[in-house]
Amino acid sequence: MRSMARLAEMPLSAVRRDFHQHPEAGWQEFRTTALLAEALEELGFELFLGDDALDPTERLGVPPALDLKSARERALDDGAPDSYVREMGEITGLVAVKSYGTEGPVVGLRVDLDALDQREATDDSHRPAREGFASKYPNTMHACGHDGHAAIGLGVARAIDQDEAFEGTLKLFFQPAEEGGRGGKPMSHSPHLDDVDYLLALHLGLDNETGTVIAAYENPLPNTKVDVRFMGEPSHAGKSPQDGRNALQALSTAIQSLYAIPRHAGGTTRINVGHVRSDNPQNVISDVAEMRVEVRGGDEKLNEYMLTQARQVLEHAGAMYGVDVETELFGQTASFVADDECIDAVVRGAEHVPGATDVVRRRDLGASEDASFLINRVQENGGKATYVGIGASNPSGHHTSYFDIDDEALELATELVHSAILSFERP
Amino acid sequence: MRSMARLAEMPLSAVRRDFHQHPEAGWQEFRTTALLAEALEELGFELFLGDDALDPTERLGVPPALDLKSARERALDDGAPDSYVREMGEITGLVAVKSYGTEGPVVGLRVDLDALDQREATDDSHRPAREGFASKYPNTMHACGHDGHAAIGLGVARAIDQDEAFEGTLKLFFQPAEEGGRGGKPMSHSPHLDDVDYLLALHLGLDNETGTVIAAYENPLPNTKVDVRFMGEPSHAGKSPQDGRNALQALSTAIQSLYAIPRHAGGTTRINVGHVRSDNPQNVISDVAEMRVEVRGGDEKLNEYMLTQARQVLEHAGAMYGVDVETELFGQTASFVADDECIDAVVRGAEHVPGATDVVRRRDLGASEDASFLINRVQENGGKATYVGIGASNPSGHHTSYFDIDDEALELATELVHSAILSFERP
Amino acid sequence: MRSMARLAEMPLSAVRRDFHQHPEAGWQEFRTTALLAEALEELGFELFLGDDALDPTERLGVPPALDLKSARERALDDGAPDSYVREMGEITGLVAVKSYGTEGPVVGLRVDLDALDQREATDDSHRPAREGFASKYPNTMHACGHDGHAAIGLGVARAIDQDEAFEGTLKLFFQPAEEGGRGGKPMSHSPHLDDVDYLLALHLGLDNETGTVIAAYENPLPNTKVDVRFMGEPSHAGKSPQDGRNALQALSTAIQSLYAIPRHAGGTTRINVGHVRSDNPQNVISDVAEMRVEVRGGDEKLNEYMLTQARQVLEHAGAMYGVDVETELFGQTASFVADDECIDAVVRGAEHVPGATDVVRRRDLGASEDASFLINRVQENGGKATYVGIGASNPSGHHTSYFDIDDEALELATELVHSAILSFERP
Amino acid sequence: MRSMARLAEMPLSAVRRDFHQHPEAGWQEFRTTALLAEALEELGFELFLGDDALDPTERLGVPPALDLKSARERALDDGAPDSYVREMGEITGLVAVKSYGTEGPVVGLRVDLDALDQREATDDSHRPAREGFASKYPNTMHACGHDGHAAIGLGVARAIDQDEAFEGTLKLFFQPAEEGGRGGKPMSHSPHLDDVDYLLALHLGLDNETGTVIAAYENPLPNTKVDVRFMGEPSHAGKSPQDGRNALQALSTAIQSLYAIPRHAGGTTRINVGHVRSDNPQNVISDVAEMRVEVRGGDEKLNEYMLTQARQVLEHAGAMYGVDVETELFGQTASFVADDECIDAVVRGAEHVPGATDVVRRRDLGASEDASFLINRVQENGGKATYVGIGASNPSGHHTSYFDIDDEALELATELVHSAILSFERP
Repeated sequence: MRSMARLAEMPLSAVRRDFHQHPEAGWQEFRTTALLAEALEELGFELFLGDDALDPTERLGVPPALDLKSARERALDDGAPDSYVREMGEITGLVAVKSYGTEGPVVGLRVDLDALDQREATDDSHRPAREGFASKYPNTMHACGHDGHAAIGLGVARAIDQDEAFEGTLKLFFQPAEEGGRGGKPMSHSPHLDDVDYLLALHLGLDNETGTVIAAYENPLPNTKVDVRFMGEPSHAGKSPQDGRNALQALSTAIQSLYAIPRHAGGTTRINVGHVRSDNPQNVISDVAEMRVEVRGGDEKLNEYMLTQARQVLEHAGAMYGVDVETELFGQTASFVADDECIDAVVRGAEHVPGATDVVRRRDLGASEDASFLINRVQENGGKATYVGIGASNPSGHHTSYFDIDDEALELATELVHSAILSFERP
Repeated sequence: MRSMARLAEMPLSAVRRDFHQHPEAGWQEFRTTALLAEALEELGFELFLGDDALDPTERLGVPPALDLKSARERALDDGAPDSYVREMGEITGLVAVKSYGTEGPVVGLRVDLDALDQREATDDSHRPAREGFASKYPNTMHACGHDGHAAIGLGVARAIDQDEAFEGTLKLFFQPAEEGGRGGKPMSHSPHLDDVDYLLALHLGLDNETGTVIAAYENPLPNTKVDVRFMGEPSHAGKSPQDGRNALQALSTAIQSLYAIPRHAGGTTRINVGHVRSDNPQNVISDVAEMRVEVRGGDEKLNEYMLTQARQVLEHAGAMYGVDVETELFGQTASFVADDECIDAVVRGAEHVPGATDVVRRRDLGASEDASFLINRVQENGGKATYVGIGASNPSGHHTSYFDIDDEALELATELVHSAILSFERP
Repeated sequence: MRSMARLAEMPLSAVRRDFHQHPEAGWQEFRTTALLAEALEELGFELFLGDDALDPTERLGVPPALDLKSARERALDDGAPDSYVREMGEITGLVAVKSYGTEGPVVGLRVDLDALDQREATDDSHRPAREGFASKYPNTMHACGHDGHAAIGLGVARAIDQDEAFEGTLKLFFQPAEEGGRGGKPMSHSPHLDDVDYLLALHLGLDNETGTVIAAYENPLPNTKVDVRFMGEPSHAGKSPQDGRNALQALSTAIQSLYAIPRHAGGTTRINVGHVRSDNPQNVISDVAEMRVEVRGGDEKLNEYMLTQARQVLEHAGAMYGVDVETELFGQTASFVADDECIDAVVRGAEHVPGATDVVRRRDLGASEDASFLINRVQENGGKATYVGIGASNPSGHHTSYFDIDDEALELATELVHSAILSFERP
Repeated sequence: MRSMARLAEMPLSAVRRDFHQHPEAGWQEFRTTALLAEALEELGFELFLGDDALDPTERLGVPPALDLKSARERALDDGAPDSYVREMGEITGLVAVKSYGTEGPVVGLRVDLDALDQREATDDSHRPAREGFASKYPNTMHACGHDGHAAIGLGVARAIDQDEAFEGTLKLFFQPAEEGGRGGKPMSHSPHLDDVDYLLALHLGLDNETGTVIAAYENPLPNTKVDVRFMGEPSHAGKSPQDGRNALQALSTAIQSLYAIPRHAGGTTRINVGHVRSDNPQNVISDVAEMRVEVRGGDEKLNEYMLTQARQVLEHAGAMYGVDVETELFGQTASFVADDECIDAVVRGAEHVPGATDVVRRRDLGASEDASFLINRVQENGGKATYVGIGASNPSGHHTSYFDIDDEALELATELVHSAILSFERP
C-alpha cells in the first residue's frame, strides 16, 4: 500500500485520524514525518530532514537503537514513503519552508508530532474506538492532541498556499519528542529559526472548550528530567543478606527525601518520580534499581535549586548503602513570556474567525513545554513569539486513555493561525 | 516432530540437556511433565496428572491464564505428547506409582521441575551455549538444577525397574513450581503421600563438589512470600500534586520500614523486597506501585513474627498517603528435621557408590525449601524423610546465568538414590 | 525593692530596658503585666486582668502549673506589685481602658508581652550586655522586640493622656503568649473588642531600618502548631528488641513523611518540626518520643490541607510500629487583610512624625501572627484594623541571641501611633 | 558530718544502703570511691587512686568538667573524706591491694560503682522509699545493683582479712562508669592486673532468685556506643525554608536506615538509638540534632560490621541534607569466655555456702559488659577469669524505678566470693 498523495488531499479530520491510528512516540515519528514531508513537497515547500531539521547532538532521551530500527520498519510497513524515511536516517522531525514574496514577514509555526507510551481505551464509549481510528499500535496513543497539531500544521500550509494574501515566508517546524522535553532544545538550534520574525506555537485543548482562544499561554514551569540508576551488589537474602549492597533501599531512601526537599519561599517548586523498577526476585538483594525524576520551578533558578538538591539527595542516598548512582539527563524545558506583537495579531486574527467566541490575551501555563527553547531562540534574535491555546472540547483529560479531539477545533485552529499570520505587521 | 519413546531410552545427561534447552517456569512445566509421563508410562508406572497429582485449590503464585495458555501451546509445538497435555489440563506436575511387591517399603522420591525467569549466558565460556543445549526460550533458564532433578527422577525409575532387588512400591513426585515455594503445599495434599514409609527429596549442587553427599539438609528457614499492590490516585505532578495519592511514596516508606523490622532475640529473621515497579511517567503522581516481599524466620514462630510486623507496616505505610494496599500470598515454605532412619539408609547406600567420596550426615540448609510440606506430611503420617544434598561441581552459583550441572553428578545421584532405596528397612 | 510608680515616670527606653532585663515567656508575663497595670492605673485607666482580659478556656500551649507557679514567685521577687499579681491569678495579660469623651472613636492598640526561651549573648559586642540590661533569667530573652512593644503601649497611653486632642476611648490590649500563636485567640474573645472602631497592632523591626513605616503588613500565613507524643513500649535493645514498640522509629518515619507532604498548586504551604526529644538510653527501645509540628498555608484552606495531611501521616506513622500517637493543639494564627481607613490614618499620622522618612502602604508579612484573631474580630464587628510595621535598625535578626532594638524606634513608634490615633475619622 | 570509720564497721546492708542513698553516675563516684578508700586503708590495703587506678586517656563518655566539679563538691558536702577526694583529682575509681603471703595466688575482684541517670520511685511500695534510704539526689538512682557490688567488694576484703586461711594477694578493682561501657577499658590498662592469677567479676540479680549462682555468665555481646551530632544551618521555616540545612531531616533519615542495616547471617546483630534531641523551635529549621547510637554483635566481627555500616549511614544521611556529622565514641565493651579453673573454684566454693541452693556452671549473658576488658587482659597474661551471677530476688527489673536488692544476697555473695577465693589452686 502506498500513501502517495493521500495526505495532501485529505480533509484535516481525516489526516488527524490517520495520525491517531498510527501513533509514534518521541524520536520514532518516522511515518508521521515522512507523510508530512511528502504532502508539503507537493505543495512546493523546501524540506529539511534529519540533521538538517535539528541538531542531533542536543537530542535527549533517545530510545535504544533497536527500538528506533523497529519503529522505522513499522513506518515503512504502514505506508511511509521510502525516500523520505531514507533521507531522515534515524532522526525524525521536519522543517518545511516556502516563500511567497519579500514584502511580508518570516513567520514560523511550530507543532509537535509525538504520541505517548500508553494504552488507548477500546470500548465504544471512546469515539476513536467506535469509529475505527483508535491506535493500531499497542501501548502507544495520541493522548495529548499532537496528532491534531501535526494536521493543523499541514492545514495552515494549505490555507496560506491557496491564499494570495500572504507575501512573506512560511516556515513550518514539525518538532519530534515534545513529551518529556526532549526535542525542543535540538530543534531550537536549527538555523532556520534565525530569521523568523514571528513564531507561533500552539496547543489544542488544555481544558478549554472549543471556541476559546488563549492568545498567549506563558510562564511555563522550567523543568529537568533525569534518569537515575542505582547499582549495588546482589546477594542471597536468606543466606547472606550482609553481602548485598541494596539498590532498592537506596532508591526508597532517595524517593522519601526527594519529595521532602524544602519548599522555596521564592516560588513554585515541584518534584516527582516515575518509571520505577527493580527486577531482582524477592529472595535476592536488589542490585539494580531505576527511576525517572522530574523537577520543576517557577523560574530557572527555582528549577536549578530543585535539581541541585535532588542531585545531593541521590548521590548520598546511594552512598548510605554503598550503592553507586548514575544519572542521565532525559529531558528539559525552559520558560518564556509571550510578546504583545504576537498576542495582538492573534487577537486581531480571531476577529475573522466566527467560531472563536471567547478570546483571552494571557494566561499562565502551569505546566512545562519545550517550545520554550524555540521561542527563546527567536526572541534572542529579535523576533517575537507566542504560544496559543485553542480550545477543543474533550471528553477526558490529556494523558488519559479516553482523550479525544473535537474535529471542529482542527478547522478553527487552522483558520485562526491563518488569520493571525495575515495580521502580522511587517517587522 | 514427535518425541515418542525418546526420553525412555536417552542417556540421563541427554534427558537433562533436553530439559535444559526447554526450560519451563513454575506452573508452566507442560512439556516436562508430559514427556516424563510418557516415559514413565512406558516403564509401567501408573500416572496421576492434573488435579490427581496435587490439590489445585492450594496452588500459590499461579501466572495469569494467558501465560499458561501460551506455555501449553509452546509445549505442544516443542514435542509434548498431546494426550498427556490434554489430561493435565492447566495443572502441571505428576505422581507416578509402580509396585514391585509387598515385601518392601513404600518409598517416595520427590523432585522438582521448574526453571527460573532469567536469561541464560550465550557466550562460549558457558558449556550449554558451547555445546548447543542452552535455553531456547528467552528469559527462562534452568539455573538451579531442577532439569537435573527431573532427569534423576526418571533415572531412578529406570534403575529400580531393571533391578529385581526392590520388593516395595516406588512413588515418584514430580513437583511443579518449587521456586517461590508455590507447588510444595498443593502437592503435600496428595493422598499418594499417605502411605509413604520413606520419602527422599534431593538437590544437586548447593556449593558442594561432585562426590560430596549430605545425607540430610535440614532446618530450612520457613518463609512466606507476599505480593503487594499499592493503589493511590494519579494526578499531574506539575499542575495538581496535591490531588494525587502517591502509591510510590507509600511503597518507599514501606520498604524503609520493612527492612527496619526489629531483629528478634529468639533467632534468625530475614526480609527482602523484589520485583518492584511503578509505571507512571515522571510527570504523573504514581497511582499504582507493586512489589514482592519475602520474610523468613529460624522457625515458624519467627517467620510468623516477621509476617505480622510486615503486614502492619504495609497497611499503615499505605494509609499514611491515603493509598490502598492489597496483599496476596505468593509462596510459602515450612521447616523440617530429617529422620535418622533415612539418613542411615543414605549413608549405607553411599557405601555402594564409589563416586560418593565424602559423606556428611546432617547440615543446616540456611535457605528455604517447599519439599518441607511433603516431608512434614509424611512425618505426620508416621513415615520418615530426608532431603539429600548431592554435590555437583558447578562453574557458577545457583541462580546465575552461567550455572551448569556436572554430568557425572546425574549418574552419581541416580546410583545413590537407587542404593539408598535398597537400604531401607522394611518398616 | 518595690517598683511603685517607677514605670509611670521612666523614659520609654528605660521601661523597655527593664522589661528586657526581666524577660518572661508566654503565659508567664506576671511581672510585665503587673507593672504595666500599676502604671496605667496611675494614669486613670480602668484595668481588666485575668479572666477579665481574655477567655482562659481558649488558651493554647499553657506551660505546666509548676512553671507558672515559679514564674509568679519570681515576678514577686523581682518587684511585681502583689495586688495585681493576686488579681490576675494564673492568667497573664491586661486590657486597660480610658475614655476621653464620646466625640472621638473607640481606638484599640494591641501589643504583645512575651519573651522567648533562648539564651542571650553575653559578650560586649551585644549592647544589652555591655550596658548592663541583658536578661537576668537563664534561657529567656526578649529576642523579638516585645519588650519594646510593651513599652510603646505605655508610651501611647501617656501621650494620649497628656494630649487634649483625643476625644474618644483608648483601649490597650496587652496580649500574652504571642510566640507560638497561643494568646491571640483567647484575647480575641474579649468583649472589650466589640465596640472598637479602629484597631492598631504593631511590630518593631522586621528587617526595616529606623525611619521606615509599613502602614499595613498583611496576608500573614495562617498556621497551626501541634504537639505530638508517640507512646510505644520499652524493651532491652540487646535482649529483646522484638518486644519494644519503638516510638523513635515512628517519630522518624513521621518526620520524613511530613516534609514530603505534596506541594499544593493553590499556593504557599509550609511544614516544620522542632523540639524533638526521646529520652530513652541507647540500650532501651524508645517508649516515648515527642515533637512539635507547625504547618502554614497561604490561606486558611491551604493551612487546613497541610494539617489534614499531617494528621494522616502522624496517625499511621505511629500505627506502623504499634505506637500510639497523641496530638494537642499548641498554637494557631489566622490571616487578615488591612483596611484602607486605618492605612490612611497611619499614612496621615506619619506626616507629622519627622523621623518617619519612608512610608509604605501595604506589604505581605510572609510570616504568621496571632494579632490576626483580634483583627478578624474587630472587622467582623464592622471595625477597621491594620498591623503596622515600624523600622528599628537591628544589629541582628529577630530570634537571634544578638537581637536588640534601636532606642529611637521606641519614641518614633509612640509618636506615630499617637499621631495616627488623632488622624482617625470619627466612624 | 564526718564519715570517719563509718563504713569500716557498718554491716554490709547498711553500707549498701548508704551508697543507695548517695548514688553517683559514671565518672562522678567521688564519694563512693573516697569512702571505700578510707575503709580499705583502715584494713591495711594499699590504695591506688586517680591515674594510678586507671588510664585516664582511655576514658570514654566523660561528662563535662562542670558536672564533674559539682559532683565533687556534692561528695565533699555529703561526707566524702577530703584527703581521698583530693588525691583522686577528677578521676574516680580505686585499686586496693593487700598481700597475705606468697604461698597463695594473686586474686582480683572487680566490682563497679556507678548509678544511673534516672528517677527513683518514691511511694511506699518501694522499700528504699519506705525505709528511708531512697536516693537523695534527683534523677540519679542505683537501679542496677552496683551499690550492692561496691558493698560486697568491701565485704570480701573484710572477710579475707579476718580469715587466716588466704595466703596470697587480694586486689580489689573498684571500677567507675560501667554503665555505657565507659570505665572498663581504662581500668583494663591498670598494671595491677598484670600479675593477677584469677579474676572474679560479679553481678547481682539478672533475674535470678536469691540462692541461685551462675558460676560463669559469658559470651556477652560486644558493643560500641557512639554519640552523634548533626550540624546544619537554621532558617525561618515560614520565610526561607530553602536556606536551612535541616539537621532533623538528617537525623530522621539516619534513624530509619540504621534500623534497616542488613541482618547478618553470621550471627546476632543489634542496633538502637536513644537520647535524641533537637531544640529548635518549630518555626525554625533545625540546625542541631543529637542522638546516641549503640551497636552490638554476637562477636567482635559482627559488632564491627554494624559499626561500619552505621558510620556509612550517618555520614551520608547528613550529606543528603548538606548537614555535617560529628561522632564521638561514648562507650565500648568486648566479649569473653570464662575459664574452667575459675568456674570450678566458684562451684567448689558454693558447696560451703548454705544459701547457694542452685548452682549453674555456664550461661550466655545476652547483654553487654565492660568487665570483658579486664577479663581479656588477665587472660592475655595467662590468668584465668569468670563473671559470676549471684541471684537477688528483685521486686522489679534492672534499670526500673522500683529496682531493689535483697539484703540476704549481699551476705551470700560475700560468702561465695570468699569461699571461691579459698578454693583457687595455687597456679
